Amino acid sequence: MTTTILDDLRAALGAKVATSAADLAAHGHDEGYPGTYAPDAVVYAESEADVLAVLAFARTHGVSVTPFAAGSSLEGSAICVRGGVSLDVTRMNRVLSIEPDDFLAVVEPGVTHRELSRLARRHGLFFSVDPGADASLGGMAATGASGTTSVRYGTMKHNVLEARVALLDGRMLDLGTRARKSSAGYDLLPLFVGSEGTLGVFTRLTVRLHPLPPSAASVRVIFPDVRRAVDATTALLGAGVAPQRLELVDAETVKAVNAYQGRDDPEVPTLWIEVVGRDDADVKASLDVVEDVCAESGGNVVGRALKESERAALWTVRHHAYYALRAAAPGHDVRIGDVCVPISALPNLVDEARRLLDEHALHAPMLGHVGDGNLHLLFHAAPSDDDAWARIDAVSDALARHAIASGGTCTGEHGVGIRKRKYLRAEHGDALDVMRDLKRLFDPHELLNPGKIFE
Amino acid sequence: MTTTILDDLRAALGAKVATSAADLAAHGHDEGYPGTYAPDAVVYAESEADVLAVLAFARTHGVSVTPFAAGSSLEGSAICVRGGVSLDVTRMNRVLSIEPDDFLAVVEPGVTHRELSRLARRHGLFFSVDPGADASLGGMAATGASGTTSVRYGTMKHNVLEARVALLDGRMLDLGTRARKSSAGYDLLPLFVGSEGTLGVFTRLTVRLHPLPPSAASVRVIFPDVRRAVDATTALLGAGVAPQRLELVDAETVKAVNAYQGRDDPEVPTLWIEVVGRDDADVKASLDVVEDVCAESGGNVVGRALKESERAALWTVRHHAYYALRAAAPGHDVRIGDVCVPISALPNLVDEARRLLDEHALHAPMLGHVGDGNLHLLFHAAPSDDDAWARIDAVSDALARHAIASGGTCTGEHGVGIRKRKYLRAEHGDALDVMRDLKRLFDPHELLNPGKIFE
Repeated sequence: MTTTILDDLRAALGAKVATSAADLAAHGHDEGYPGTYAPDAVVYAESEADVLAVLAFARTHGVSVTPFAAGSSLEGSAICVRGGVSLDVTRMNRVLSIEPDDFLAVVEPGVTHRELSRLARRHGLFFSVDPGADASLGGMAATGASGTTSVRYGTMKHNVLEARVALLDGRMLDLGTRARKSSAGYDLLPLFVGSEGTLGVFTRLTVRLHPLPPSAASVRVIFPDVRRAVDATTALLGAGVAPQRLELVDAETVKAVNAYQGRDDPEVPTLWIEVVGRDDADVKASLDVVEDVCAESGGNVVGRALKESERAALWTVRHHAYYALRAAAPGHDVRIGDVCVPISALPNLVDEARRLLDEHALHAPMLGHVGDGNLHLLFHAAPSDDDAWARIDAVSDALARHAIASGGTCTGEHGVGIRKRKYLRAEHGDALDVMRDLKRLFDPHELLNPGKIFE
Repeated sequence: MTTTILDDLRAALGAKVATSAADLAAHGHDEGYPGTYAPDAVVYAESEADVLAVLAFARTHGVSVTPFAAGSSLEGSAICVRGGVSLDVTRMNRVLSIEPDDFLAVVEPGVTHRELSRLARRHGLFFSVDPGADASLGGMAATGASGTTSVRYGTMKHNVLEARVALLDGRMLDLGTRARKSSAGYDLLPLFVGSEGTLGVFTRLTVRLHPLPPSAASVRVIFPDVRRAVDATTALLGAGVAPQRLELVDAETVKAVNAYQGRDDPEVPTLWIEVVGRDDADVKASLDVVEDVCAESGGNVVGRALKESERAALWTVRHHAYYALRAAAPGHDVRIGDVCVPISALPNLVDEARRLLDEHALHAPMLGHVGDGNLHLLFHAAPSDDDAWARIDAVSDALARHAIASGGTCTGEHGVGIRKRKYLRAEHGDALDVMRDLKRLFDPHELLNPGKIFE
């Protein structure tokens, strides 16, 4: 951007425009993509009017715009590969209403899921999508995020009810409905959820809240191998207990956490299962079913937690996996692989991952939202170890293609960003051309988050 | 269509082309729209290749094509307002696979939901969307159908996992994924679900199956007024019992069924509530919660059914409402109103409906999927009573606009078809123009089910 163009931006948005080295650097990377692509300017939007002013500026000057909030994306979705303006919406962080009778909240895109959860709790409600990082709701909607409880409550695609979207041409669209269902014409909302800011900019979201379960309990069950843990998962999903969480960690992960925390948990594949219910008796009865079902697949219960404090302790291994790995491999960068397959294809995916890791002499703990068929590999290497990163690329690439060939997807919840663009043809075939047609319809000059999703 | 053009169709599709008066008449109406619009020809497609041949013919000759299956639509969605070809897919009725480990089935579009349910049951599974009529899955996907169990399992939008779609230009798209979630680019599947055959033709669907609940029970609860029944609904949705059905009928409906069946149920607003669980003890405990919650809103239990046979008896009133009305008003045509609002807005909607009916001197029992905020009015009048139909139009119109103004929708589950087109601007604003842009992208010459959704 030339100085003249920057002056125009300042004329429109005044002190909300920032160009300091620190501002540009902070918006040049996310938490998972290795490259840095700084914008030419950051605009800290405070309102929908500011968002529209930035889009008008982009139109007039042919400058690209990339929405940014918590910066917790993992695939480069929020960084400016072609410079331009980083449209920071973190100041649009008001929870506009919580409406308990309709089980929903209306928020600005910069609100984080933790903040919303905190406020919802006062009404006996919670926001169910928890991606781990304290992501913004706008960013989570943009990547179609999910997390540990999606097996019961669905992903952002199921929990965004309405979105107000600013289009590049200056129109504001109100998509979705507060009614629980509608058959009134084309459902445009799901097109925008997961579009990573390439079609428009969210200025407001209505999200679903769920009643806090009156009671919950967790159990940790070890299995001789991953295949049997997955058998148990399938049986659990059919058993009428509707788990709230159904998480798998592999032996490597348990080993890393044992070392990190001085524990001596059995270093074998382990399922973490959480059930909820009307009251403690209900939950205990569900746990009995869960344990019977797991036993039939060769599982052994090694921990049962009824109270909230016990539950927290039980979930330690699962929650600490990432930090344990970082501690086990000091100085290493971590890349989190994210593929998702039909549940029946998960054992083969895990076998294939193990085989690929061995073939490429790599070490990567695996964990997954197994109730969703979603597997994460925690790849890691020293930042300068080009050879290791090349091998990680090879494994990552083979796994994405294996997942697609198994009827699954190259990304279950992290989005496409930059790194996964090359798999979309294999995954979508001719539908990728239709996606490009839609992109062209909303953004004919490729100004909205250019270089993402499409190669 | 000229004789020459028809000859071309016969050359391409042989004996699958039908032009008898009976064939044309059978495809000229549905179960709810009063007008008759016969096609020029019917093609009984037996395969994807046949569908593509019809689309190629349409392209070449500029002839319009309207997909047709069970013909159970209510808003005219499947009839040929501009003639052309009725593309009948009822012979594409194979269940291609049931895959219990992944809780899904792959079907051709002409399979009916009852047939799928029958086959799924052998695997301990069921297909959850039951619109009442024995609709085809292709038609249900096309209108975004739902039914009594959507409060727990969602609508077709939540239960179609993959669709294979034939585009007018001859491309085949494979949309969606068998993985339980994906963030891989734009989610095009929800754009086609609910598009009423105006963007493409389904040739195959992958749908979700759910485990048959090990145990279920129902309860019937009467309330002094609708407002208190809705209060109970909100409380029930927050109570952690996740009802499988949550249905409301008004006093008029009970009265009609009493007369039809010689019953003497209390003629007041009544909730039908069904809960499911691990086992009978679980379900009984849930019923206790349900009854306590209802009592707090002034509800009185008048029937409790634990066994399947008892449940069937209990649900009689709900199931027989339509037939009771037909019996009560012999010779009348029935039009089923369908609006849907946020649950908190339902009491006002019911009050407004009552007021409008009184104002226009009409009688129409009301029932609703109250857990979804979805209200149906059973309007009826003699076919020739133009004055009554004008008053029905007036009430129907005012209710659609009231629902939209309340943050809801002019159609919860029946689709737009012909009759609801005029409300889409009020409901969607500028987003309607975007819908038109999308229509133009897939069907620039308006050959696919023309005259539907858009005015």
